[in-house]
Amino acid sequence: MFYIDILGIVAFSISGVLIALEKKMDIFGILIIAFVTAVGGGTLRDLLIGHTPVSWMQNITISYVILGSTIAAVLFRSKINYLRTSLFLFDTIGISIYTMAGVEQGIEAELHPLICIALGTITASFGGVIRDILCNEIPVIFRKEIYATACIMGGATYFILKEFPIQENWIFIISGAVVILIRLLAVKFKISLPRLYKEEFEH
Amino acid sequence: MFYIDILGIVAFSISGVLIALEKKMDIFGILIIAFVTAVGGGTLRDLLIGHTPVSWMQNITISYVILGSTIAAVLFRSKINYLRTSLFLFDTIGISIYTMAGVEQGIEAELHPLICIALGTITASFGGVIRDILCNEIPVIFRKEIYATACIMGGATYFILKEFPIQENWIFIISGAVVILIRLLAVKFKISLPRLYKEEFEH
Amino acid sequence: MFYIDILGIVAFSISGVLIALEKKMDIFGILIIAFVTAVGGGTLRDLLIGHTPVSWMQNITISYVILGSTIAAVLFRSKINYLRTSLFLFDTIGISIYTMAGVEQGIEAELHPLICIALGTITASFGGVIRDILCNEIPVIFRKEIYATACIMGGATYFILKEFPIQENWIFIISGAVVILIRLLAVKFKISLPRLYKEEFEH
Repeated sequence: MFYIDILGIVAFSISGVLIALEKKMDIFGILIIAFVTAVGGGTLRDLLIGHTPVSWMQNITISYVILGSTIAAVLFRSKINYLRTSLFLFDTIGISIYTMAGVEQGIEAELHPLICIALGTITASFGGVIRDILCNEIPVIFRKEIYATACIMGGATYFILKEFPIQENWIFIISGAVVILIRLLAVKFKISLPRLYKEEFEH
Repeated sequence: MFYIDILGIVAFSISGVLIALEKKMDIFGILIIAFVTAVGGGTLRDLLIGHTPVSWMQNITISYVILGSTIAAVLFRSKINYLRTSLFLFDTIGISIYTMAGVEQGIEAELHPLICIALGTITASFGGVIRDILCNEIPVIFRKEIYATACIMGGATYFILKEFPIQENWIFIISGAVVILIRLLAVKFKISLPRLYKEEFEH
Repeated sequence: MFYIDILGIVAFSISGVLIALEKKMDIFGILIIAFVTAVGGGTLRDLLIGHTPVSWMQNITISYVILGSTIAAVLFRSKINYLRTSLFLFDTIGISIYTMAGVEQGIEAELHPLICIALGTITASFGGVIRDILCNEIPVIFRKEIYATACIMGGATYFILKEFPIQENWIFIISGAVVILIRLLAVKFKISLPRLYKEEFEH
């Protein structure tokens, strides 16, 4: 648990709060959605590799950060629009950190590199998937996939760099930066993978 | 597994059957919904703390009780309205028992009190959440949250009472009673937490 | 991992691709839906009995087969209609194999025969349930249940045959054949369990 992790948890919690507010949920529903958005991906990762009790149960700080972020986001919800750019940056940093944490856990469990990359992607994206399912939406990730592509590219970078004599820490930093860079570029230039049957989709 | 537990399983199963009937499911769908409503919360709790195979797999009585309740509820479905008050009481007792069982398991796994309270709430409420997701509804708990608030209050009572020289059994009974009391009062006086953006919601 | 298993994985992956295409998902969404359709049931089974890291993480061949099937199905999507009969047969074989694999794992974990049958049914059917939840549909299995009935009958056949002096391998083959037979007959003669409130359902 590093200080930088907290940025990701804060951003993910607030993204959950914003969607729960749109759905007109009560304060308890908002808190739950913030929680699953922030820890859902890591929880699924922990369950799949058998790392139990899952992480957020063993580190109470995570719960405090989510609780604090949720309260702050609800109180200042009318002003949150001014923060959208900062939030987007936090969120992108969060994705990057979550991806690398998932990859790392996969390596510790001695899994195949492809599975490690999948774990990184699950850690970074599954919280949002659960959030969307609970809100009764088709998960946004299935329709806006550069998000996941960024995670996959970051994970792949890690395993490519490992073939070279580079220090472990630097490999993590560079791979994490790849995630951030791809996502920023994709959003800036509105890049997305081709959708099949696209012409019918734009209704 | 005490006799009183069975009341909760019966009530949760029947609540599942009623909702599945509304959705016009076939008999197999009804059984599944009854099953997940009754054991979904405990299953998630077991998975999160790594207590596997999960409880209902190790105690076949649970399956028999659910199967029996489902068959009875389907056969007498036209008469079930006369039992609504009894069912509501069973359900409330079930929530109380499930909450305390979750808190207890958290303590056995040596988790932080807040996490234990969360586990109690998950045990009592997540079966209903899965039921609603499978029926393609926004989980009712996110819109009617006194249910979960009662669980949280009961769990908190447990940890407050533990600071006093009270016998363990009594602590469980009093905390469980708090869950029941809060839920009954909330329903009787139609109390619910404020919904944000409430005015827009009542369409 | 036998060669025959691969048929099931291929069929399940393609069934996922077809549904994702209908939902106009992008290529990443299609891959995820193919993946959860193929491994979702086995993953839930592994989680419930505590067999982690889950199977697909320990056998990279599974991922390659899913990836290959998905790419092939997307490339030849305009021609896939000609293969519907073969796909249905593969799918039925897949269900049969998945059921028996689930039963076997339950026996290894020394669970009650009824629980083993449930595990077989979960393995064969839950991938489709997750697929439908992610696509925001009420799971088709709750409305077309002969699918699950076939799994349950196959599992029951296994435990009945075990009372007789028949070789283990033959028990698996006969039980698996029962799953296939019931499903083929049900589809051929359009048999389905009675739906309660059926008359209101046909809107």
